[in-house]
Amino acid sequence: MSRFFSARYADLTPYTPGEQPQNRAYIKLNTNESPFPPSPGVAEAVETESRRLALYSDPECVKLRAKMAEIYRLDPDQIVMTNGSDEVLNFAFMAFADEAHPLAFADITYGFYPVFAQLNRIPFTEIPLKSDFSLDPADYIGIHKTVVLANPNAPTGLALPLSEVEQIVKSNPDNVVIVDEAYVDFGGESAVTLLDRYENLLVVGTFSKSRSMAGARLGFGFGSKKLIADLNTLRYSTNPYNINRLTDAAGQAALAENDYYMTNCRTIIENRAWTTEQLRSLGFRVLDSKTNFVFAESPQIDGGALYGKLKEKGILVRHFDKERLKSFNRITIGTKEQMQTLIETIKEILGG
Amino acid sequence: MSRFFSARYADLTPYTPGEQPQNRAYIKLNTNESPFPPSPGVAEAVETESRRLALYSDPECVKLRAKMAEIYRLDPDQIVMTNGSDEVLNFAFMAFADEAHPLAFADITYGFYPVFAQLNRIPFTEIPLKSDFSLDPADYIGIHKTVVLANPNAPTGLALPLSEVEQIVKSNPDNVVIVDEAYVDFGGESAVTLLDRYENLLVVGTFSKSRSMAGARLGFGFGSKKLIADLNTLRYSTNPYNINRLTDAAGQAALAENDYYMTNCRTIIENRAWTTEQLRSLGFRVLDSKTNFVFAESPQIDGGALYGKLKEKGILVRHFDKERLKSFNRITIGTKEQMQTLIETIKEILGG
Repeated sequence: MSRFFSARYADLTPYTPGEQPQNRAYIKLNTNESPFPPSPGVAEAVETESRRLALYSDPECVKLRAKMAEIYRLDPDQIVMTNGSDEVLNFAFMAFADEAHPLAFADITYGFYPVFAQLNRIPFTEIPLKSDFSLDPADYIGIHKTVVLANPNAPTGLALPLSEVEQIVKSNPDNVVIVDEAYVDFGGESAVTLLDRYENLLVVGTFSKSRSMAGARLGFGFGSKKLIADLNTLRYSTNPYNINRLTDAAGQAALAENDYYMTNCRTIIENRAWTTEQLRSLGFRVLDSKTNFVFAESPQIDGGALYGKLKEKGILVRHFDKERLKSFNRITIGTKEQMQTLIETIKEILGG
Repeated sequence: MSRFFSARYADLTPYTPGEQPQNRAYIKLNTNESPFPPSPGVAEAVETESRRLALYSDPECVKLRAKMAEIYRLDPDQIVMTNGSDEVLNFAFMAFADEAHPLAFADITYGFYPVFAQLNRIPFTEIPLKSDFSLDPADYIGIHKTVVLANPNAPTGLALPLSEVEQIVKSNPDNVVIVDEAYVDFGGESAVTLLDRYENLLVVGTFSKSRSMAGARLGFGFGSKKLIADLNTLRYSTNPYNINRLTDAAGQAALAENDYYMTNCRTIIENRAWTTEQLRSLGFRVLDSKTNFVFAESPQIDGGALYGKLKEKGILVRHFDKERLKSFNRITIGTKEQMQTLIETIKEILGG
């Protein structure tokens, strides 16, 4: 830290992203990326758009929001597009939480939530998941706090049914409930259908997982027009041109080929079922995932040890060195071939 | 505003970007974009990179920073890359200004500075430029505040000599001096050469102007390793993947063809000299610009009226409806042909 750094942020502990090795080619099952490339139209769209880079991007993302509105059956003014879903999450924390509206979220969930809370000096409560890692809706009903629910949750992969999400939203009418649906396309139930009934609901999503675009940085928020206007007040006070031309064009091209991505999601769900079954037959405990990853522990080998041995053998998974999580690994679901290699490698490790 | 919006931001007035018309094709001289397309390698680089979009981008921008380091003769750890220079400015305001380190900047300068200050609830003083729009370094010497200097300044186009920038940096050793060099490649003197002597200096730049990439959103900050580490603490607490793969690839390709951009800068400087001479011969007062725009007023026509008539005739310039500025227009320097059309059109308007 320099001697100039503001005391406001002196205690801030930044988020630690998963490893992004730039050298050795791993089978990369550690950051929940898609094993499938973007759809065919994306390359052409960005190549064409690159010739127009001298001009600023459209700060309103008019065309992109129009396509989103069509697919999600919303009004374009119910949509804000952001530089990854991290950006909309940060804006939502800023907009809808403060000393008078403290935050509540699970103790085991996306690790960025406490960082955003600290960054913005918002008081927060981490509510423990149950011993089976499920979230008890009763803990959030009528809590009178700004609630953040990752649904499905990470790194557990578990999902709440929509009826329980609705109870939480309905019982906290004076606070915004942020439902982070980064993984919803892999089997969760989206709260987007509740938007016309609840003005305090914000649904957050991303192109990083189901739409094979982690590297493009495209996220979004859905809410009432007023909630979205508030987020835009912050966006226009931070970085109005947050979506660059290339990402905008890539997003539009992807939405024009949306079926391709939805087919890929079905393949991932099949591969997840196969992987879960294989791991269980090897004695692993595997939580019931509705995401593109599984969270698994083995009675035979410590989580950190398995992570290390897999890495030695060229497979990266994600290990969290944190109480309650450290016996587990979070394993992204890749192609069938990648999952077969994973299972064979785990067999070798357990057998050796 | 929704009833959920935090009282913290209730009074925030967002930045107003220049018009970005998505329909009619204007001669666009209103947002200081380059009239030249990106260099030939950019299209191929982004087309290739688009096939790797499923993977997260490199949060450290290792390759891009290595090329920047080579060109600017810095250590890569003295460089942070951001989503436009707006992002590094926001991080710098957060990191190096607070109640104990209030901000000081000119009353006429980049309109985003007061917005970032309000957003982060940092006290700030706007110091009036002199009546000729020049900045008096004496106003900033030993001021004991976090100073922000746009050099060259916008919308005036005027530049401070490096020796005066150095005096300001040297006389405020306990505060960071942020020198925003968005326009430096059009004739300013960069403070980058002072970095090895002053640990309190942060230099900010962008690919939006001289490198024809406003639409790619690529900015940067140069400073001591400690200052850059502080900015990275905030970046990793906000959006570690702030640079997407396509922009990263475009930036690398642009730097590999850096001479192309520097040649374009010389052309802009020639076109600026021609435009200035023509406007002056039409009776305009034109400030001495070191940027890719000129700031000009005519004794014959009100600034707002000229803006409106030019727009009717298909030419967009930027008008600021603000005391001291409203008789002027800020006119981006485009190609020689665009500037010839501008001058002919102004002649018509003044003659009519």
